[in-house]
Amino acid sequence: MRAAVVRDWQLRVDDIAEPTPGSGQVLTKVLACGICGSDLHLLAHGREQRELSAQLNDGVPEDPMGMQMFVPEHDMVMGHEFCCEVVDVGPDVANLTVGDVIVSMPVAFDAGGLHGIGFSNRYPGGYAELMVLNEMLAVKVPTGLPVDLAALTEPLAVGVHAVAKSKIVTGESAIVMGLGPVGLACVAELKLRGIGPVIAADFSPKRRALAELLGADVVVNPKVTSAIEAWRTADGIRQLVIFEAVGVPGMINEAMRVAPRNTRILVVGACMQQDHIYPMLGIGRELNLQFVLGYEPGEFNYALNAIADQRVDLAPWITGTVAIDGVPQAFSDLANPEAHAKILVKPA
Amino acid sequence: MRAAVVRDWQLRVDDIAEPTPGSGQVLTKVLACGICGSDLHLLAHGREQRELSAQLNDGVPEDPMGMQMFVPEHDMVMGHEFCCEVVDVGPDVANLTVGDVIVSMPVAFDAGGLHGIGFSNRYPGGYAELMVLNEMLAVKVPTGLPVDLAALTEPLAVGVHAVAKSKIVTGESAIVMGLGPVGLACVAELKLRGIGPVIAADFSPKRRALAELLGADVVVNPKVTSAIEAWRTADGIRQLVIFEAVGVPGMINEAMRVAPRNTRILVVGACMQQDHIYPMLGIGRELNLQFVLGYEPGEFNYALNAIADQRVDLAPWITGTVAIDGVPQAFSDLANPEAHAKILVKPA
Repeated sequence: MRAAVVRDWQLRVDDIAEPTPGSGQVLTKVLACGICGSDLHLLAHGREQRELSAQLNDGVPEDPMGMQMFVPEHDMVMGHEFCCEVVDVGPDVANLTVGDVIVSMPVAFDAGGLHGIGFSNRYPGGYAELMVLNEMLAVKVPTGLPVDLAALTEPLAVGVHAVAKSKIVTGESAIVMGLGPVGLACVAELKLRGIGPVIAADFSPKRRALAELLGADVVVNPKVTSAIEAWRTADGIRQLVIFEAVGVPGMINEAMRVAPRNTRILVVGACMQQDHIYPMLGIGRELNLQFVLGYEPGEFNYALNAIADQRVDLAPWITGTVAIDGVPQAFSDLANPEAHAKILVKPA
Repeated sequence: MRAAVVRDWQLRVDDIAEPTPGSGQVLTKVLACGICGSDLHLLAHGREQRELSAQLNDGVPEDPMGMQMFVPEHDMVMGHEFCCEVVDVGPDVANLTVGDVIVSMPVAFDAGGLHGIGFSNRYPGGYAELMVLNEMLAVKVPTGLPVDLAALTEPLAVGVHAVAKSKIVTGESAIVMGLGPVGLACVAELKLRGIGPVIAADFSPKRRALAELLGADVVVNPKVTSAIEAWRTADGIRQLVIFEAVGVPGMINEAMRVAPRNTRILVVGACMQQDHIYPMLGIGRELNLQFVLGYEPGEFNYALNAIADQRVDLAPWITGTVAIDGVPQAFSDLANPEAHAKILVKPA
């Protein structure tokens, strides 16, 4: 089958062997799969990240979610934001049949353990024509929901989880720093929960416009107005929660520097390098830093339903679609935040 | 009056003017005042700390508690862990009379604002013969409680507050890294709350012995056994809360490195320099970092009562007493953790 393969830490389009479903698994064809910023990051920094992880974990690189680590010497197909159609069923499958359209958390399990789909040598992700998924984690896409929107379940779930971990309640206010898909997902869920004001900050006018479509109360270009100034103007009183979704070194400290007393800072941007902070900033104002990753099954289902019920419209996120041969170019194109928010890979 | 004065960032014993109580204030003589590690730190790093604070706060150094900042060009008398006897009352004092023995949160307030006692040019702290205190914050020491123990109210309150901020509940377990007075206060309050097991770690045998007296379930020398190994042996299952009370660069990252998934890390050690962390450690395990400082009035009273009711015995903390002339030597002596935990200044 056709696939965009990570080989020698480079993305190459090639023909690879088709995967075979095992017990309790189904073979699916990929209808749509979003390209995630973390995939760009893995390609650019995966090698150092792996060395760093080994160094920090007594010589053995550790997958943060407890999954089997992929071996960089072998091919790996990324893509973990997918919507698929069942084309064959393995043994012992009870509830799925050929033709079912499904989404799934990007996890596969078998006798070898847990595998992160899109980060595994054994389970190719959605930048390929075919994927194997476990029936148990599959969720049927509600009738009438376009597959492109269903593929956005996963990135929305990331925001749903971050907001849940923040324990934010009505009467509190929020700043979202960085409006890539993760930051946008936080804005979406904050507004679904009726939180306000939500201040959203990004250098890119296009991304600020997307945040406004999701209901952000104030959007700012931090080159012109800092998010905290905008918050002081719009509110300045309510308990503040800051979602740091930029994920580059220095941003955690910047959030700490501007945060009022008792602010909760959610670290949702994944900074993979060493970072620096001034603990005195946190101590003086008794700040709280909550690091977050991923989501739980219930949050994944909640995200799918929020999209299907049209409580949130993520259609404007989709700024491009490519076939598998176009994946490497799409990775380059995503570097320009004005051109793109989310590109979908559509193998068919 | 005799006082140990901070002048040109050096500690000098000198005669200075006696303070005068204003409206709602009393003049007291210091019966006992503990030397706090943060005072040693202020003397050693106060100048850089001040420059750093200015740099991080748009040019204006900021007191973390919102107090008036002291001006380093003028004398300042440290000492914020005191027990005093009222020797004169100012105007408009209703409930205190000469002879009352009191403790107080180290804060004074007047028309000029809030002043941190022991960090103020206007309100000398307890390394002097006399102090001015606000009646409203004074708490009478229960009859029969020795003044030396009453002076330990303040450092115990720091631990009471840190444990409260941790939201630790019965059924969870704790590691305390660093057994200076702040770490010991955390151990004391954790055991007052019936938390267990509590693993306490410090290089110093003397300090480990003090932690054992307070009820620490396991004490370890981290050169021999890491705290996390000891926790795995003693428990390894319960939700873990780590109290980082060492406060030197690298310790927050070390706590993050060893912490199991979902661990709450309380940053109670005040690292005043720049520090480095690997956010990926926090993200992968969804860690929570809560920075803490100080205590609330209720926690201060709780600490006093815990000591007075003999629910906790802090007498072994007191490893020395000095007169005011001995304060500079005591500061040097405190560098040796085997020799000392808490030295009390007793001006009389």
